[in-house]
Amino acid sequence: MARVNDHYLKLAAGYLFPEIGRRMEAFTTAHPEADVIKLGIGDVVLPLSASVREAMHKAIDEMATVEGFRGYGPSEGYEFLREAIAEHDFGSRGVRIDPGEIYASDGSKCDSANIQEIFDEKATLAVSDPVYPVYVDTNVMAGRTGEPDEAGRYGGIEYLPCTEESGFLPSLPERPVDLVYLCSPNNPTGTVAPRAELEKWVEWARANESILLFDAAYERFISEDVPHSIFEIEGARECAIEFRSFSKTAGFTGIRCAYIVIPEELRGRDDKGAPVPVSQLWSRRTNTKFNGISYPVQRGAEAIYSEAGCKEVEANVEYYMTNARLIREGLDAAGFTTFGGVNAPYVWLKTPSGLDSWAFFDQLLERANVVGTPGSGFGSCGEGYFRLSAFGFREKVEEALDRITKAFG
Amino acid sequence: MARVNDHYLKLAAGYLFPEIGRRMEAFTTAHPEADVIKLGIGDVVLPLSASVREAMHKAIDEMATVEGFRGYGPSEGYEFLREAIAEHDFGSRGVRIDPGEIYASDGSKCDSANIQEIFDEKATLAVSDPVYPVYVDTNVMAGRTGEPDEAGRYGGIEYLPCTEESGFLPSLPERPVDLVYLCSPNNPTGTVAPRAELEKWVEWARANESILLFDAAYERFISEDVPHSIFEIEGARECAIEFRSFSKTAGFTGIRCAYIVIPEELRGRDDKGAPVPVSQLWSRRTNTKFNGISYPVQRGAEAIYSEAGCKEVEANVEYYMTNARLIREGLDAAGFTTFGGVNAPYVWLKTPSGLDSWAFFDQLLERANVVGTPGSGFGSCGEGYFRLSAFGFREKVEEALDRITKAFG
Repeated sequence: MARVNDHYLKLAAGYLFPEIGRRMEAFTTAHPEADVIKLGIGDVVLPLSASVREAMHKAIDEMATVEGFRGYGPSEGYEFLREAIAEHDFGSRGVRIDPGEIYASDGSKCDSANIQEIFDEKATLAVSDPVYPVYVDTNVMAGRTGEPDEAGRYGGIEYLPCTEESGFLPSLPERPVDLVYLCSPNNPTGTVAPRAELEKWVEWARANESILLFDAAYERFISEDVPHSIFEIEGARECAIEFRSFSKTAGFTGIRCAYIVIPEELRGRDDKGAPVPVSQLWSRRTNTKFNGISYPVQRGAEAIYSEAGCKEVEANVEYYMTNARLIREGLDAAGFTTFGGVNAPYVWLKTPSGLDSWAFFDQLLERANVVGTPGSGFGSCGEGYFRLSAFGFREKVEEALDRITKAFG
Repeated sequence: MARVNDHYLKLAAGYLFPEIGRRMEAFTTAHPEADVIKLGIGDVVLPLSASVREAMHKAIDEMATVEGFRGYGPSEGYEFLREAIAEHDFGSRGVRIDPGEIYASDGSKCDSANIQEIFDEKATLAVSDPVYPVYVDTNVMAGRTGEPDEAGRYGGIEYLPCTEESGFLPSLPERPVDLVYLCSPNNPTGTVAPRAELEKWVEWARANESILLFDAAYERFISEDVPHSIFEIEGARECAIEFRSFSKTAGFTGIRCAYIVIPEELRGRDDKGAPVPVSQLWSRRTNTKFNGISYPVQRGAEAIYSEAGCKEVEANVEYYMTNARLIREGLDAAGFTTFGGVNAPYVWLKTPSGLDSWAFFDQLLERANVVGTPGSGFGSCGEGYFRLSAFGFREKVEEALDRITKAFG
């Protein structure tokens, strides 16, 4: 019988969000009358904007004509999109990124899951704790780890605790590792790394010949004066890869578009120690395992950078960040201890009465009919914490806060 | 410095189609006046049909309303699409496939590239020669092979020659292997496996506990009475996975939608020899490394199964298969020896005067300004052969045949 990839069998019970879905379904089956408010999975609710809608309609009409039809596109994405990204997301902040260094994709989840494939199977890695589970799970699946311990930590990964004492910023690894996953603004803690912190990481990565895998999917939610891109830090082009997403700002969670930036200068080494451009491997992967994203989707993404599109994104961001402020203020008033929610659409809270995260999940669901995400689902340092997402309708957020205050205040 | 995945460095010069692109660009730069006709990469030309266009427009309009907006969808695809597939592609032919056994994706290239990830890194494999390069390259990248020999064959893969003598059908492997990639109707040879042949494979796979990775991306082009799905063969549910695509029939090469079928009964084994459902691993991969395909794309794919959509697909298939017939007849009349083109949109021809495949590619480009695909790009048994695709406009196909007849007839 064909041997399966056993590493998959090391994975814990299930991916976090399906588990939340299962518990939620069990609850609503038992309480069909309950009006459950979801501030869990971090999915957006505001509809597709007019600019995106019109651009996608136009692209579909083009595709329905002999002259305008487009078949296979470049696997890395069309130039029109990569140029818009380079100019608006980087050039406008004084950062030099060539369109050829940008690879459009169908999501940051996919990119941050796939990136490990181009590195050695024995590459060593460090992740924050708590952390977005995809970074860890995909390395487990690729065989870079041992079995999980009781706390769910996999052997072979260096976990960098993010605690209240350190402002939820990860400390530098104790020994050199090949790859470090960093996420700022952070999912799940909602905190952001200031410039000095990023400078420290870039300096460390260059000194240790490590590569930083920098997830900036939430950069548009930054309100304070901190870098939006790792490439705002000098020297980052030699040691970093960046992930960006349209999911949360432009309502693209169901449309699917994101991108990854791999600077030309970035090098890994082969088994003889000779330097190899990392972009060469990613380009090969992209052309062999992927065939580009849907043309109408790429036109929709391009439209985000039009004058009207930019305003629509700003309005979305403002809407969700007002939610974040309301959640923070509401929870604080109800006696909770909260973090984040200023430069990220997530509020990270301490569970009351020393409850563990899943116990609070169940209580919140039972007593307030509100769904959130247990901090322990993101790692053992998340135990005793809980994530609420600002991606909801205003009235739902306000209603959720009322209920939480009544149940726990 | 972070170690890269060295296995990538074993890969030959470049993926076949980018290499064709490079040679074509060099030619058109040197001869800007030339009107080059492309019958190479196998990309479709007919525009998106009215049903697909309308369904996608409708989905986008939905997404632009508060009530109709959809965020993250199921990673495996929406039920509406999986149900339509199960009913129309399988139920209608008397094949029982549950919607839960269908996983929608962004392309058969992606599916056939990703499937190997869920098997052991030491899984053994066999492929036809010639073969769609993605099957081989992705296994090279995953480290299942040695270095390529002079003929471009990688150590550790069993190559099954498909020659004129055997009607381009692969013979059974000489020893048991874990995975066999089969493609019928075949890319590149344009031939199709009759029922008895598929029965032979299923029997062999069951006896040897192998898994057949059956690529049926071209099944809609079958005109003779042969199975369209491996699951029309008794026992295939215990030993096969099938790939299907909307790319060529519905003009989806730039829209991106396909699917994979993994029957519930299919088992691999873990390191202790215990059986593991293969679908369990694929589902985990899908949920961890992927986030589903664009909602408007899924609605577009669903529309292919409407009454009007079916007729539109039939019209597309008839158009391209008329091209295939014209190519076959035209080449035969010009003195070429041809194969395929009856149950597949590809014609496979013997190069004239014993030219090697790339030499004929260059001559065809120089003397007829026609681009095709060198058979050797698909494997060493493809040397001396050449693929022409039927995916072009009628007048271009006719013009190409005129030129070929003048140049080589």
